Amino acid sequence: MTDASTIQELVEKFMSLPGYMKSIGAYVRAAEVGMVELALNRKPDLLQFHDNFHGGVISGLADHAAGGAVTTTLPPGRVAVTVDLHVNFIAPANGETLIAKARTIQSGRTIGVAHVDVFSTNGESESLCAVAVATLRAVEFSAV
Amino acid sequence: MTDASTIQELVEKFMSLPGYMKSIGAYVRAAEVGMVELALNRKPDLLQFHDNFHGGVISGLADHAAGGAVTTTLPPGRVAVTVDLHVNFIAPANGETLIAKARTIQSGRTIGVAHVDVFSTNGESESLCAVAVATLRAVEFSAV
Amino acid sequence: MTDASTIQELVEKFMSLPGYMKSIGAYVRAAEVGMVELALNRKPDLLQFHDNFHGGVISGLADHAAGGAVTTTLPPGRVAVTVDLHVNFIAPANGETLIAKARTIQSGRTIGVAHVDVFSTNGESESLCAVAVATLRAVEFSAV
Amino acid sequence: MTDASTIQELVEKFMSLPGYMKSIGAYVRAAEVGMVELALNRKPDLLQFHDNFHGGVISGLADHAAGGAVTTTLPPGRVAVTVDLHVNFIAPANGETLIAKARTIQSGRTIGVAHVDVFSTNGESESLCAVAVATLRAVEFSAV
Repeated sequence: MTDASTIQELVEKFMSLPGYMKSIGAYVRAAEVGMVELALNRKPDLLQFHDNFHGGVISGLADHAAGGAVTTTLPPGRVAVTVDLHVNFIAPANGETLIAKARTIQSGRTIGVAHVDVFSTNGESESLCAVAVATLRAVEFSAV
Repeated sequence: MTDASTIQELVEKFMSLPGYMKSIGAYVRAAEVGMVELALNRKPDLLQFHDNFHGGVISGLADHAAGGAVTTTLPPGRVAVTVDLHVNFIAPANGETLIAKARTIQSGRTIGVAHVDVFSTNGESESLCAVAVATLRAVEFSAV
Repeated sequence: MTDASTIQELVEKFMSLPGYMKSIGAYVRAAEVGMVELALNRKPDLLQFHDNFHGGVISGLADHAAGGAVTTTLPPGRVAVTVDLHVNFIAPANGETLIAKARTIQSGRTIGVAHVDVFSTNGESESLCAVAVATLRAVEFSAV
Repeated sequence: MTDASTIQELVEKFMSLPGYMKSIGAYVRAAEVGMVELALNRKPDLLQFHDNFHGGVISGLADHAAGGAVTTTLPPGRVAVTVDLHVNFIAPANGETLIAKARTIQSGRTIGVAHVDVFSTNGESESLCAVAVATLRAVEFSAV
């Protein structure tokens, strides 16, 4: 565990690595020990046939935010990878931005759990469009 | 319900609509009443930091295959949308292609359920990398 | 929807019906529109081999509390039945009493969703031992 | 891992320990490496208000069968405990007997996963009433 500014830098470093999260344009909105918020702006390539964010995109953002949130509670050199993910789609994600707010609810020796609220925002208004719970485990990671 | 060739056409039509599934390159491998197989080839933009397919990509392909599988059991003009999705990540998805095989295990008046096995393939070899269960509900759809 | 005292009476009426919840001794601790708390005291018949409450008992209490919470948001004559249930076991449930606090996070025309925090209590102290999310649907019920 | 007859004995030994599973009358129907089947006969104390097996009872039987199935794949002295459980209720469990058939789909160093089909039987006929997926982890156990 490290202080909040280092945490934010660490999480941003992760998000800037090449790969899926960077390719869809996800970015860090906030990060502190045990909590990570990721956001993603609306683009045609991220929607389904009713012009809402696709369930897979919502699931991916929730998954990644959960991984970030639990990773911030681990010792340096360890990263949390998802064991399983459960997502409930509550309302159409038809806003301009998708925001996944993940908070760690358990951080054990082998297992971590995070709860994620996903909001769809339009201007000032923010509405809950999905909730997710992810179970994760800690693995060694030396590449960052 | 319609015959198998119409089903395949219907599912392919869905996949060719603009949006997330088309943008990542997902395609129909097989479709019949109650069953849909989708596939997706490896690209750097779909991976996470260990160079495996990202959990969000796996979740999205599973979700979409589940939706397709249950939709094939509905009367014309109705489409299944996901209420909730549970994904277990079993092994790293480090192959060249990801294949989601969804089969309908319940198709009721309001609720449908599909089980999905997701495989990671490398040449001839195919290994299970995730399993998912999706709960869906039927809604009207007139745009296809 | 009815006022809070009627809600409490209604939920207590449900709990007093013969069957599983009554047989294990579950009782209503609080109820208002959208929220139900159920409790259950420790008995040898409810434990597993490490002398904690059995996962099935925790799941059942969470499920029933979720059903109660969503039912309080429905018009009279309708009851919420569980479509699927996801439970994360966070810590051993080794206290004297198990308390499931369910709150409705969605109540739609066909689907409802409740989040449940389950606590294990020992004297004054209360610790989170499980979290659950249940997806439910409304059905007619005339017997109460 | 041990041979099939030892496995059956081991699982029966577990089921005969005092506690929840014994108190509701659950019994072993079959067991081999990676697979356990548990059964439970209908009693008024196990039902909900529509006279079907209660969702908590179904969840508990599925959970315990999953634990048994993964435990049979572990070295002696280790037992699988549930990290999280996801249950889909497919059809009313209105039969005379409930049967949970669990099979291990992953058994790793820290994590195991089991899929469970739960059937409701009436005489010769057997119908699927629920499916479950459990994520488990291995812990030391010396008391058996």
